[in-house]
Amino acid sequence: MITTVGLDADDTLWHNETLFRLTQQRFFDLLADVAEPETLAQRLAEVEKRNLRLYGYGVKGFTLSMIETAMELTGGEAPPRVVREILASGREMLTEPVEPLPGVDQALARLSERYRLVLITKGDLLHQEQKLAASGLGDLFAAVEIVSEKDASTYARVFARHGTGPAEAVMCGNSVRSDVLPALEAGAWAAYVPYPLVWTHEQADVPEGHLRFAQLASLSELPAWLDEVG
Amino acid sequence: MITTVGLDADDTLWHNETLFRLTQQRFFDLLADVAEPETLAQRLAEVEKRNLRLYGYGVKGFTLSMIETAMELTGGEAPPRVVREILASGREMLTEPVEPLPGVDQALARLSERYRLVLITKGDLLHQEQKLAASGLGDLFAAVEIVSEKDASTYARVFARHGTGPAEAVMCGNSVRSDVLPALEAGAWAAYVPYPLVWTHEQADVPEGHLRFAQLASLSELPAWLDEVG
Repeated sequence: MITTVGLDADDTLWHNETLFRLTQQRFFDLLADVAEPETLAQRLAEVEKRNLRLYGYGVKGFTLSMIETAMELTGGEAPPRVVREILASGREMLTEPVEPLPGVDQALARLSERYRLVLITKGDLLHQEQKLAASGLGDLFAAVEIVSEKDASTYARVFARHGTGPAEAVMCGNSVRSDVLPALEAGAWAAYVPYPLVWTHEQADVPEGHLRFAQLASLSELPAWLDEVG
Repeated sequence: MITTVGLDADDTLWHNETLFRLTQQRFFDLLADVAEPETLAQRLAEVEKRNLRLYGYGVKGFTLSMIETAMELTGGEAPPRVVREILASGREMLTEPVEPLPGVDQALARLSERYRLVLITKGDLLHQEQKLAASGLGDLFAAVEIVSEKDASTYARVFARHGTGPAEAVMCGNSVRSDVLPALEAGAWAAYVPYPLVWTHEQADVPEGHLRFAQLASLSELPAWLDEVG
């Protein structure tokens, strides 16, 4: 019996990677004289990955990584205009309006009648809280957990604290690496709802033939799947 | 009867503001040609305050605010070297070793025998978790809450979740504004342990004649005060 539904936020409830890609495009344009977009993308991904253990997830760390990448690619001489534009990009990402993905409102409203909903997300603490507030979805959640890493112990802890343990919980999100695999490892169920874009750091293979796993076309399919298995 | 002890982290368990001040000094040196230290300090404080609602608390936001201040004070033309040095300062703050303040280990060990200890702190999620791990104090805490703001509702929620409610809890920290006043407002007890330096944003007057409040010279005095009142 499923009692608790964990939900990822970025690219599961609302757009996120699209915004990162738009900002990256702006970054490529800014440095068009310095290198090709492919080179810029690769270097930025390297710097981001290297900085993850220092900055964690979120827009502030991404902004700092863009400045660092610009410095590296210009031999430490990134023009002030480039730095100003990157700062402005970061600020704009933090104030971008939040719009739930189609069908998310209705799916959550229906789920919240039968299950305890818990938001489980990485990213900057304040920014994730602000996005949830701006989305208008906050009241549907019984609890919100903003975490620095999503591994099996995270899910075991969160579903014990806010539910009846991982065996009676399902995690739903767009990242196989962060939402699906560690939730299954913790003994929970998992639903994968792909988003058209995936950050390179989050890419992983979909598990095959797992009894507690389903791939869904949208969050709207989650209630029916839970009726089936629960 | 007190069952739960909430503890602030930065400047209560380990040094923090000292490190911010050292970094600020380095920032003043970097921009010595541009403005006097007093002017730089004032402008940086303004930018930090303006950015709080966007960046929240912590080193990443502080780093971005230093770059923004440098840009503002140079008419948008901060030299690349200045930006690189600011980035490096931020990175160094994030990797600085963490050393508990004198007497903190023993005081927490003693408190943990009788009370449930809860760490309640603002700042960057990942960085605060890393500092707690590096301090070696993590095992003494029953729970850790990294929050975006410390107001009365925060304390009511945290002490309900991890204890037996605010009336049976005490909050201990170095900020009258963030640790003492909102905890008292929530109905909890509060102990103020001053640190020699206070960030301008955190300054506030010490409450007078409050029955559930004490000012202590160090955390070592907390067990005796709790014996007295509890």
